[in-house]
Amino acid sequence: MTTLPRTLGVCFYPEHWPEDRWPIDARQMREAGLTWVRIGEFAWSRMEPEPGRFDWDWLDRAIEVLAAEELKIILGTPTATPPRWMLDKHPDMLAVDEMGHPRGFGSRRHYCFSHDGYREESARIARILGERYGRDPRIAAWQIDNEYACHDTTVSYSDAAAKAFRDWLAQRYQSPEALNRAWGNVFWSMEYDEFDQIDPPNLTVTEANPAHRLAFARFSSDQVVRYNRVQAEALRPLTDAPLIHNYMGREVSFDHWAVGADLDIASWDSYPIGFLSDRLDASEAHKLRFLRQGDPDNQAFHHDLYRSVGNGRWWIMEQQPGPVNWAPHNPAPLPGMARLWAWEAFAHGAETVCYFRWRQAPFAQEQNHAGLLRPDAEPAPALAETRQVADELVEAPEAGVAQAQVALVFDYESCWAWQIQPQGAEFTGFDLALSAYRALRRCGFDIDVVPKDADLSGYALVLAPGLMTLPESLETVTGQLLMGPRTGTKTGELSVALPLGPSLPGLDVSVTMTESLPPAETIPLDGGGRFHRWFEHLDGTAEATRTTTEGQPALASSGNRHYLAGWPDDETFHAIVSEIAGAAGLDPLDLPDGLRVRRTDRHLFVFNYAPEALSWNGTEIPPAGVHREDL
Amino acid sequence: MTTLPRTLGVCFYPEHWPEDRWPIDARQMREAGLTWVRIGEFAWSRMEPEPGRFDWDWLDRAIEVLAAEELKIILGTPTATPPRWMLDKHPDMLAVDEMGHPRGFGSRRHYCFSHDGYREESARIARILGERYGRDPRIAAWQIDNEYACHDTTVSYSDAAAKAFRDWLAQRYQSPEALNRAWGNVFWSMEYDEFDQIDPPNLTVTEANPAHRLAFARFSSDQVVRYNRVQAEALRPLTDAPLIHNYMGREVSFDHWAVGADLDIASWDSYPIGFLSDRLDASEAHKLRFLRQGDPDNQAFHHDLYRSVGNGRWWIMEQQPGPVNWAPHNPAPLPGMARLWAWEAFAHGAETVCYFRWRQAPFAQEQNHAGLLRPDAEPAPALAETRQVADELVEAPEAGVAQAQVALVFDYESCWAWQIQPQGAEFTGFDLALSAYRALRRCGFDIDVVPKDADLSGYALVLAPGLMTLPESLETVTGQLLMGPRTGTKTGELSVALPLGPSLPGLDVSVTMTESLPPAETIPLDGGGRFHRWFEHLDGTAEATRTTTEGQPALASSGNRHYLAGWPDDETFHAIVSEIAGAAGLDPLDLPDGLRVRRTDRHLFVFNYAPEALSWNGTEIPPAGVHREDL
Amino acid sequence: MTTLPRTLGVCFYPEHWPEDRWPIDARQMREAGLTWVRIGEFAWSRMEPEPGRFDWDWLDRAIEVLAAEELKIILGTPTATPPRWMLDKHPDMLAVDEMGHPRGFGSRRHYCFSHDGYREESARIARILGERYGRDPRIAAWQIDNEYACHDTTVSYSDAAAKAFRDWLAQRYQSPEALNRAWGNVFWSMEYDEFDQIDPPNLTVTEANPAHRLAFARFSSDQVVRYNRVQAEALRPLTDAPLIHNYMGREVSFDHWAVGADLDIASWDSYPIGFLSDRLDASEAHKLRFLRQGDPDNQAFHHDLYRSVGNGRWWIMEQQPGPVNWAPHNPAPLPGMARLWAWEAFAHGAETVCYFRWRQAPFAQEQNHAGLLRPDAEPAPALAETRQVADELVEAPEAGVAQAQVALVFDYESCWAWQIQPQGAEFTGFDLALSAYRALRRCGFDIDVVPKDADLSGYALVLAPGLMTLPESLETVTGQLLMGPRTGTKTGELSVALPLGPSLPGLDVSVTMTESLPPAETIPLDGGGRFHRWFEHLDGTAEATRTTTEGQPALASSGNRHYLAGWPDDETFHAIVSEIAGAAGLDPLDLPDGLRVRRTDRHLFVFNYAPEALSWNGTEIPPAGVHREDL
Repeated sequence: MTTLPRTLGVCFYPEHWPEDRWPIDARQMREAGLTWVRIGEFAWSRMEPEPGRFDWDWLDRAIEVLAAEELKIILGTPTATPPRWMLDKHPDMLAVDEMGHPRGFGSRRHYCFSHDGYREESARIARILGERYGRDPRIAAWQIDNEYACHDTTVSYSDAAAKAFRDWLAQRYQSPEALNRAWGNVFWSMEYDEFDQIDPPNLTVTEANPAHRLAFARFSSDQVVRYNRVQAEALRPLTDAPLIHNYMGREVSFDHWAVGADLDIASWDSYPIGFLSDRLDASEAHKLRFLRQGDPDNQAFHHDLYRSVGNGRWWIMEQQPGPVNWAPHNPAPLPGMARLWAWEAFAHGAETVCYFRWRQAPFAQEQNHAGLLRPDAEPAPALAETRQVADELVEAPEAGVAQAQVALVFDYESCWAWQIQPQGAEFTGFDLALSAYRALRRCGFDIDVVPKDADLSGYALVLAPGLMTLPESLETVTGQLLMGPRTGTKTGELSVALPLGPSLPGLDVSVTMTESLPPAETIPLDGGGRFHRWFEHLDGTAEATRTTTEGQPALASSGNRHYLAGWPDDETFHAIVSEIAGAAGLDPLDLPDGLRVRRTDRHLFVFNYAPEALSWNGTEIPPAGVHREDL
Repeated sequence: MTTLPRTLGVCFYPEHWPEDRWPIDARQMREAGLTWVRIGEFAWSRMEPEPGRFDWDWLDRAIEVLAAEELKIILGTPTATPPRWMLDKHPDMLAVDEMGHPRGFGSRRHYCFSHDGYREESARIARILGERYGRDPRIAAWQIDNEYACHDTTVSYSDAAAKAFRDWLAQRYQSPEALNRAWGNVFWSMEYDEFDQIDPPNLTVTEANPAHRLAFARFSSDQVVRYNRVQAEALRPLTDAPLIHNYMGREVSFDHWAVGADLDIASWDSYPIGFLSDRLDASEAHKLRFLRQGDPDNQAFHHDLYRSVGNGRWWIMEQQPGPVNWAPHNPAPLPGMARLWAWEAFAHGAETVCYFRWRQAPFAQEQNHAGLLRPDAEPAPALAETRQVADELVEAPEAGVAQAQVALVFDYESCWAWQIQPQGAEFTGFDLALSAYRALRRCGFDIDVVPKDADLSGYALVLAPGLMTLPESLETVTGQLLMGPRTGTKTGELSVALPLGPSLPGLDVSVTMTESLPPAETIPLDGGGRFHRWFEHLDGTAEATRTTTEGQPALASSGNRHYLAGWPDDETFHAIVSEIAGAAGLDPLDLPDGLRVRRTDRHLFVFNYAPEALSWNGTEIPPAGVHREDL
Repeated sequence: MTTLPRTLGVCFYPEHWPEDRWPIDARQMREAGLTWVRIGEFAWSRMEPEPGRFDWDWLDRAIEVLAAEELKIILGTPTATPPRWMLDKHPDMLAVDEMGHPRGFGSRRHYCFSHDGYREESARIARILGERYGRDPRIAAWQIDNEYACHDTTVSYSDAAAKAFRDWLAQRYQSPEALNRAWGNVFWSMEYDEFDQIDPPNLTVTEANPAHRLAFARFSSDQVVRYNRVQAEALRPLTDAPLIHNYMGREVSFDHWAVGADLDIASWDSYPIGFLSDRLDASEAHKLRFLRQGDPDNQAFHHDLYRSVGNGRWWIMEQQPGPVNWAPHNPAPLPGMARLWAWEAFAHGAETVCYFRWRQAPFAQEQNHAGLLRPDAEPAPALAETRQVADELVEAPEAGVAQAQVALVFDYESCWAWQIQPQGAEFTGFDLALSAYRALRRCGFDIDVVPKDADLSGYALVLAPGLMTLPESLETVTGQLLMGPRTGTKTGELSVALPLGPSLPGLDVSVTMTESLPPAETIPLDGGGRFHRWFEHLDGTAEATRTTTEGQPALASSGNRHYLAGWPDDETFHAIVSEIAGAAGLDPLDLPDGLRVRRTDRHLFVFNYAPEALSWNGTEIPPAGVHREDL
């Protein structure tokens, strides 16, 4: 375990403001206790106003002004915003949507990951930036591109993508015959004679073959990895500063571990209130209760996920400071939340929390997005909270985060599989994982979110819900292992596993039939609780340690291995996890709704997401309250 | 009345499985009590791997293995799944959707009914199959294509369709002037000078002329008829086995009687639970009550409809045996339903019930669709129910179905008319017909669903709701006749009928104004009951035998002829139908919710669709129970 | 104040009917008390059956027959319905929708406002009509085109529009650099080097720059103005009869005042029941209560708006007489409403109310749309009500409408701004204005709806909610002024105003943060009431005359100037407006739900929209009742 210093930062766009404001801004940043400032990631049109003509003066001066206040700079490659002239150079660089429409210039991310010409342009600008600033000590980190996948941009149906997809298929399957067999193309005479006959799986009469769709999802993810890699490879020889990408929340369209393998630090952009309004799978009552705080588990899930993606090193690159502009409804955070969110990140091992953004822009798409300063340069409410965190950091300037006792296995491919083949309208891999995570968090556990090839041997408790295929790593679990539903029921080509899965040695259980349920229907369990959304019929000699009221197995167990036959509601999931955790020698709590805890190597943190005060061992924690105890 | 033997069958895909399994499968089929096996309908790429090169060996062997177990074979023409090379041969064969996008390769049904080249290819493969197997006694029936219209494929906006539409219009109207007059194109200066100026009615600024849209619906239906006919004509001289098509549920985009006229037997694909989730117009409470059983009237309606389409001969070609993969939610049937559904079909005169499918495929689009065997070849729950039905058939091996005393007139053109011109958001012709059917079924009647040109003279009670035009057949009704709402209010070109309809001799009533109502509004009737969705203002000297609480006519009657001025809710529809049925000398029951009856020439069958036991004349019928009484 | 005579009229389509019916129709019109008849607006294919060949005979005869009954004719230019041959002449004349699909022939309004060729054709036909009928005394008014914007036709993304947009931008901004600065295109490297690089803002990856979208909205509005002007200019020299256009309800896609400036009279097409079903922002309970009457304030709002657009002269060109065909549900009006709607229009200063249409057409798109006659030429219910109004007009044949004491400032550009940047899913400029109008109407006030550059100095009370920019006119208000929410918070380029708005001299208040709220969340106010949907945080020295229960300013006041920090619900809006109205020396009422009043220079009118009788100063007003008192 490494002890890591904790710092604060902010995102800043010098190109948006008069140059005479820069020194004032820089001074105020320092005064606010900020250490880092991210710049440059959308400024291509200012760096290279026309092809091959560069203007570095403004950027040099901005770096100088910021460094003068001892701010460390994260420099972004500007490839998420190709200038207008790029489109003249590469008219076919645009991504194409599922309906076949090119996704045009006028916002951002208007490029197809598969376009060779644009990928080369991206490597070129990264290399030029590296050559100019790679050894500049003021540039202390690099961000490559910005929010891959944002605005649904991972997948493109362009001609460039179709061509690259065929090459990818040829590499993977070697022959059309092998592909036909792997996909089961005999099913509806879908067999191909040549790779060149294969199109992306859009605009078919009814759904395309799930294997075809999974292949396209894998290909699309690989194209992101490849695109990121050319920039990383361009920068690597030119700098020793860490390379970072800022990932998003609830974005599963590419394999983040695969991208992360080429980078040094993972970061993510955390908008708790925006995400609650925009993309949380929860009841209206839950959303109303946490309207101004964000979901109590959603941020923590991503913290734990990206800590793993970053191989232990992770940041928040963009932290919501106030109302945003992009969700269906955009209320203000409860006072104190901008502080709570930062401390929660630190408690999960974040090195740096950067707020987005320094000063609210008065123009363009995000003009209604709050910053630490208002558009008129006066302090916005979050500025004081930032300063408060900075002051508090003096007393807790660093920490290490140990491996947790509990692991949740999360898998991007499985998310694609269930998106392609939900079978029930409400089934998604992400939501199932978050359900499991919620159950663990309510127990008060620290959790590692890990990929399916992780070393799971050191965990007391491992949850592995909804994994398309059964990873070998599960066989090495010596603690308690809870799998299912849907775990290990498919092959790697998204066919039904034969023999019927999951085929985990030591647990004789198989899924013989699955049922998806409408919201009004549940499967009651004997002794209380219920499944909703999903229920599997199990066979095998494993003991039914829980059953439905009809006597069907709900949980099948053999020693330390358990398979869950349905999707429990929140209450039931917590009860089941608690029981298994007890068997693992853990001491599960039943935290009240909104209270959450996290430990570092030195402290226990308690966070109150609820709109009312809640009690922790006799200590009253106010709304948005952060409580710290020595361990 | 002909007495018909009752048999069971199954759908099987030898091309999906290793050849050494075939004999085992065939033996198990026989052991399960199955008589029929359908094969071949999706196997074009295996029959003709490249243009003109055929591979019959596998099919010959499959036929041999199946016939060795005395299974009778239904051989399908594989035209629902043109192979990939077909698209190279005919790049313009694809249908085009309403937004102008070609509907591409990668699933099935990727052809436009109007494409001359593909229609010729279809005739060619049918002829080649007929030449090879037409006189083979093991081939005891033929299926042409598969599920016309599935995936919304009746209508295409391709260039081929546009061209064929113009020819069709020229034939129908002879001159643009006649067409302009018939359609009322003067209305918005929509007049045409030449047929070549007329496009399909998609992508117009606001809705196209209803007459234009109705013409396109008629044309599109005719194209299905024509397409089917070329295959039927190719096979006819080559075989004496019956020609069959497998229709779908709640599919009204083409005139099934017109297709049926070229075939020998009608069959349909019955998925009671999938349809309930996917396409039933009913309350959430109703859907929850019948979640695992399917709607109690939906199957019966289609049985009675397709008995007519088949001119008395009909099958179920695909019977749901367990959870399917394609509905929003896919629960498992209540134990016993796979048996109940089969017996209900037999009670309505089915000759054969084939389950879909023999063994659940582990790959491709339907891998989550249950079969009689699980993917691992073990028995799925429905297999035992199939065997039970087979055993029960020994005691009731055959029956005849007499003409019913009650007829419901159903009309495809009217469905198109009200789809084009719903006037109220919830108005569809199908749902109105099903409402009427429900009311009759609750009375315990046997029902014939008949086309509007049927001979209605022998019925004690005829219901004719929502017929666009008034058919002459209604004039011949000597029993009680209940028409409306909307019946006879339009001309054949979907204009308002003048004089205002319905103009049925002997019933002086006309519709002077119509109102559509939002779900929260109803029109209460004097003495109880209510209309919802639809209410018409009536004029004329016919007696108002029921009125609204405001005193407006709700039912106008003259002797045996009645016109209903609105859409009654289920309770009210039953009450009104009961009263008129009484006048017809029938003895209407008020069956409890879920209990349904049907008679053959020898037996009365009682079916319990409810999730709880219900009583029939003192006999308790358990959930999914089938009760048989001698007549 | 001018006293204006009141007359009735009707829309008639002689080309739809046999010529021998015309004299009967004309006589019946006169007998019904009608003075005006509108003809010709959809008859281009009959006026000019092929390019350059005209057929005037039928029109001459129709005019003759109608004039023989002393009916005055409104002649329409037929440009909303270009004939099919026009498309052969100008294949690129079609508008293109947001997804890039041409909007084809087969209904109406299939032209792009930016197409030079079609605009010239429109001027040509207007000129030809003017030459032929401009001095004919029987033609007493002209209607240009029909319902601009109907079917979402203001905005087009055609090549013609793109080209015209670039020219428009070049004129407005003079240089790409100026445009880049004005729009803040530096934001995401969206800077342009040439005007020719700029596309319409559709099909971008995520939302285009709000300034880009606002520019396109302005351009699109200007194209309507320009299109209308060429027809007005063609007719002007040829006739002295007034030029009119018939606007729509709740249609804000172009600036109606700008179109109105080129015309003599504004008219609008009022469909109270259709609008309630189709486009009213209200609770289901409200919609059910007023299902057969229409919303009690929606018509009045448009009356007051179009009185201003017409500079005091306005008509209803199309008045709903019975059920229509185009809303999701189409019930019949409560008996008496066809009379009430007419009288309400007269009470608001209408000169003429024309019912749409004379006789219900039996064919084409509107065959289910009621007229004064049924399709079979018998009287529909509204005919008697029309006659009743005509009789009543004898006693109140004319009136003047004085400037009101209360003004509501309404602004089309602000509607575009909030449509582009709603920030909360339920925020629209129109709905906010209608909320304010409702509050005023419940007080019983007469109201002027005025543009933002109106002379506001004479009003006792001015409401100015949701104005994007702060107009100078507000500074001249000497009565009470209530602004907000959102008023004056943006620049003319849809950027955040700096210093933060509203910057109204004499009221030190600024909006520092905004919040949008989901439907379930409200902000309670101290002393009762609540904001929903929207809440702003205010700064400044103005007194918080109302606060939230948390103590934040809800209403900031300084002397006669007030700024409202949120969107009050109906109850609260009325309470706040009442209080300020009291300070203005007005005497606000609290009218019961459905009762509404309006004054002319001689009478007070009371209208009962409720389905039950309501009392006005002891007089019971029945449902649909109209009560008139002398002033």
